[in-house]
Amino acid sequence: MSERGPRSVSDSKVTLTQMMEVTDANVAGNVHGGVIMRLVDTAAALAAIKHSGGVALTVGIDEMTFLEPVHIGEVVVLRACVNDVGRTSMECGVRVEAEDPITGAVRHVNSAYLVFVAVDEEGRPRSVPPLVLESEGERRRQREAKLRRERRIAHREAIDSARGAKERQLEGS
Amino acid sequence: MSERGPRSVSDSKVTLTQMMEVTDANVAGNVHGGVIMRLVDTAAALAAIKHSGGVALTVGIDEMTFLEPVHIGEVVVLRACVNDVGRTSMECGVRVEAEDPITGAVRHVNSAYLVFVAVDEEGRPRSVPPLVLESEGERRRQREAKLRRERRIAHREAIDSARGAKERQLEGS
Amino acid sequence: MSERGPRSVSDSKVTLTQMMEVTDANVAGNVHGGVIMRLVDTAAALAAIKHSGGVALTVGIDEMTFLEPVHIGEVVVLRACVNDVGRTSMECGVRVEAEDPITGAVRHVNSAYLVFVAVDEEGRPRSVPPLVLESEGERRRQREAKLRRERRIAHREAIDSARGAKERQLEGS
Amino acid sequence: MSERGPRSVSDSKVTLTQMMEVTDANVAGNVHGGVIMRLVDTAAALAAIKHSGGVALTVGIDEMTFLEPVHIGEVVVLRACVNDVGRTSMECGVRVEAEDPITGAVRHVNSAYLVFVAVDEEGRPRSVPPLVLESEGERRRQREAKLRRERRIAHREAIDSARGAKERQLEGS
Amino acid sequence: MSERGPRSVSDSKVTLTQMMEVTDANVAGNVHGGVIMRLVDTAAALAAIKHSGGVALTVGIDEMTFLEPVHIGEVVVLRACVNDVGRTSMECGVRVEAEDPITGAVRHVNSAYLVFVAVDEEGRPRSVPPLVLESEGERRRQREAKLRRERRIAHREAIDSARGAKERQLEGS
Amino acid sequence: MSERGPRSVSDSKVTLTQMMEVTDANVAGNVHGGVIMRLVDTAAALAAIKHSGGVALTVGIDEMTFLEPVHIGEVVVLRACVNDVGRTSMECGVRVEAEDPITGAVRHVNSAYLVFVAVDEEGRPRSVPPLVLESEGERRRQREAKLRRERRIAHREAIDSARGAKERQLEGS
Repeated sequence: MSERGPRSVSDSKVTLTQMMEVTDANVAGNVHGGVIMRLVDTAAALAAIKHSGGVALTVGIDEMTFLEPVHIGEVVVLRACVNDVGRTSMECGVRVEAEDPITGAVRHVNSAYLVFVAVDEEGRPRSVPPLVLESEGERRRQREAKLRRERRIAHREAIDSARGAKERQLEGS
Repeated sequence: MSERGPRSVSDSKVTLTQMMEVTDANVAGNVHGGVIMRLVDTAAALAAIKHSGGVALTVGIDEMTFLEPVHIGEVVVLRACVNDVGRTSMECGVRVEAEDPITGAVRHVNSAYLVFVAVDEEGRPRSVPPLVLESEGERRRQREAKLRRERRIAHREAIDSARGAKERQLEGS
Repeated sequence: MSERGPRSVSDSKVTLTQMMEVTDANVAGNVHGGVIMRLVDTAAALAAIKHSGGVALTVGIDEMTFLEPVHIGEVVVLRACVNDVGRTSMECGVRVEAEDPITGAVRHVNSAYLVFVAVDEEGRPRSVPPLVLESEGERRRQREAKLRRERRIAHREAIDSARGAKERQLEGS
Repeated sequence: MSERGPRSVSDSKVTLTQMMEVTDANVAGNVHGGVIMRLVDTAAALAAIKHSGGVALTVGIDEMTFLEPVHIGEVVVLRACVNDVGRTSMECGVRVEAEDPITGAVRHVNSAYLVFVAVDEEGRPRSVPPLVLESEGERRRQREAKLRRERRIAHREAIDSARGAKERQLEGS
Repeated sequence: MSERGPRSVSDSKVTLTQMMEVTDANVAGNVHGGVIMRLVDTAAALAAIKHSGGVALTVGIDEMTFLEPVHIGEVVVLRACVNDVGRTSMECGVRVEAEDPITGAVRHVNSAYLVFVAVDEEGRPRSVPPLVLESEGERRRQREAKLRRERRIAHREAIDSARGAKERQLEGS
Repeated sequence: MSERGPRSVSDSKVTLTQMMEVTDANVAGNVHGGVIMRLVDTAAALAAIKHSGGVALTVGIDEMTFLEPVHIGEVVVLRACVNDVGRTSMECGVRVEAEDPITGAVRHVNSAYLVFVAVDEEGRPRSVPPLVLESEGERRRQREAKLRRERRIAHREAIDSARGAKERQLEGS
């Protein structure tokens, strides 16, 4: 976990692929949303670990969209990468697809953006390498990540000024 | 699941309480973030089910904040209620606390806002009862929910106009 | 875990609330009795931990009654408290209800009485605080706990004298 | 599930044997009491199923004694049989031992008595075959089962007359 | 699941990727061999399903080699494809690697060959498409699969003639 | 784990018996092949541990045959013993039967042969006691184990000479 030089987006790319079993079902017989959430968190955390070269903790989910239910017996494919970095924080995006192994049909079922903070052995925030962008798609994802971050900060200020309360001061990176 | 009259926020209140066992641990030995996510989803879904009197599907997580890690052996308490409703959609808020059963110490560990859509037996959106507000706190939470919703819509428009793509049209309630 | 003063019954009150998922089913499709047993044990243990301010081990189940099957998708609510204490032992009672989140119907599904012994870091029995009773219901539950305890001791003596064997000498508190 | 003739105790004998894995641990690192409870319930239910030739539901645990903790990596051996039968009910006894596979040391860790009721396809109580006793040990276990049953009935009457309430009328076999 | 034309090896290629969690541990603290076996079976079954366009049942494992233990927190990558086909059977090979997400180090930890039979809705064997080979590596793997098959048949004959018993006649495709 | 004298086959005999629950199901509703594989591995490992008086690691599966599907609600019985030993390795055989607890019908569903290596505290191979054969059946199983071992070595040589590659040199005991 020594100091790392700049790293490209593709250095942090992660793909998780897993078959949905009966133990993953919800009461309605589809895949439990909580199972997808957990896999999304794991995929995004692995991208953050790969970029930062050490442990990373989930600070929050900025947005997660469930587009369609996933069925038992389908294979879920999660693709995650780092979209943007702060001093000690990273935003990771995850795209989830579900594939029917018999027909080969693939559906986009979930998209999510999560924020992580890199920590050292004592759990204190540590700085992360700069992110090198290499394509127009990566630049677009970084712009959108910055929009989400501004929106997040503005939203908290709006809430806090309306509330007078300030119970959250996390993520100051 | 017949048509229901207006319902108060307290009619939808849900508390889940569960002890964290070793099977809930992540690699670092704390409670896995995915375990908390799944419980948050379950608590919020139960609030949406209670308000709407039938099945409700998770459309998305609007925001989830992990404030502190939870430890194995602690008791997690999740409090959920409906903050605001659209025609077929509901925003639910969840506050998660962790209690050490030996010392009695309680910590606020997670807050989240999720959006659900009520569906009928065929999975089609169905209308939900109006929400009756009875306190200043409930009115504040509804205002904040409306802010999140506006922000969500504005953000999507910003992204979409920047992208020219429009792949998401969920949640039109 | 220092010496504690007398504690009231309500100081040890515990409520666990959990939704029953498909992984909780038995072969017949209802909630597995073993799942309920485990939750009952956890709820009672938490009451014993809260009263005694430290670790408590399950010595035995004195009585557990399954009144009705629980269904997948229902929310199980377990209420536990300490009924009576010996020098190092505690009897805890648990009442289990199942709620259908759609209809709101609540059924009493299980009642149980368990005995715990408080132990220190080396696993040796340690003394527990006296129990302060504050209501007629609490006094009735203590009387019934004492009846169960006498019955338990008498029963063992009957069995042991009939057997001539004496393989159990636990719980001498 | 046609009418069966009398059956001996040994016809209902069941042995379950299972290695305790890390997913069976409690917070203290030993085998979770709830895991043992569930296995005890399964072993006793199988004995009741074998005797009655059909489905049997757990009515209650009459007594369960935890003698010693079980360790992860040990092999748990549960021996169950039917001790006594009523018209539609059966009492099953279970003895649990834990074996260290490296040293071969065997310890008696749990004993339990459970009551089951045989049910038909609609879940209504159905009559069970008479129990044929073939040894002095079997006769002793039947006598003790009858003692437990009398004690159970007497205890309920004592509680009920003290309470004036009569909320339990199960198990009228 | 209609009749399919010939299919290439790459049409059946499957990659599963999964992070090993604490619930995957064995008593020694590494990943349980049974967890790897199950993932290997799933990966190979998915390759057989993709090739045959329908359900496929595991007939047997012909060989599975555990080269090195896998650690909790590592990401396991399983690559499976169809090596050879009979009339209704398929041999699938699986190569398992473990990656440390922090260091990026990758180790080859397991190799296995499994045999599947394609079945229809009633569970009867159904014919599978011919396999089109497109590279020298694919031709080598087919030759080795045919060697394993001959060896398997010869071995069974040797055992059977030595035994005079013939209890296995599976897999006559 | 001190040096042991010669041990008989029956000294290593292991029986595991477990009821198949709904969490053991595959997508088709039968018991997941991976569940059986894991139990087979556990049973064989216990036999190897008993023979060698210490930890044993799975080196490989030499052959595993799935004869018939197992149903949820059936009781699986696995019988394992050591068939043959090398200097530090052991071949264990496992026979799996499934019993319907209502009808009592028993079916042979799986047979497998696995190879283990005994290791010391540092994970280095350690020598295992000689195997004492006491019956004709035991001698036959040892002969077959030696056939499998020769076949395994011959097969690897054939593959390796065809490949020119030599990536596996495990199990030189």
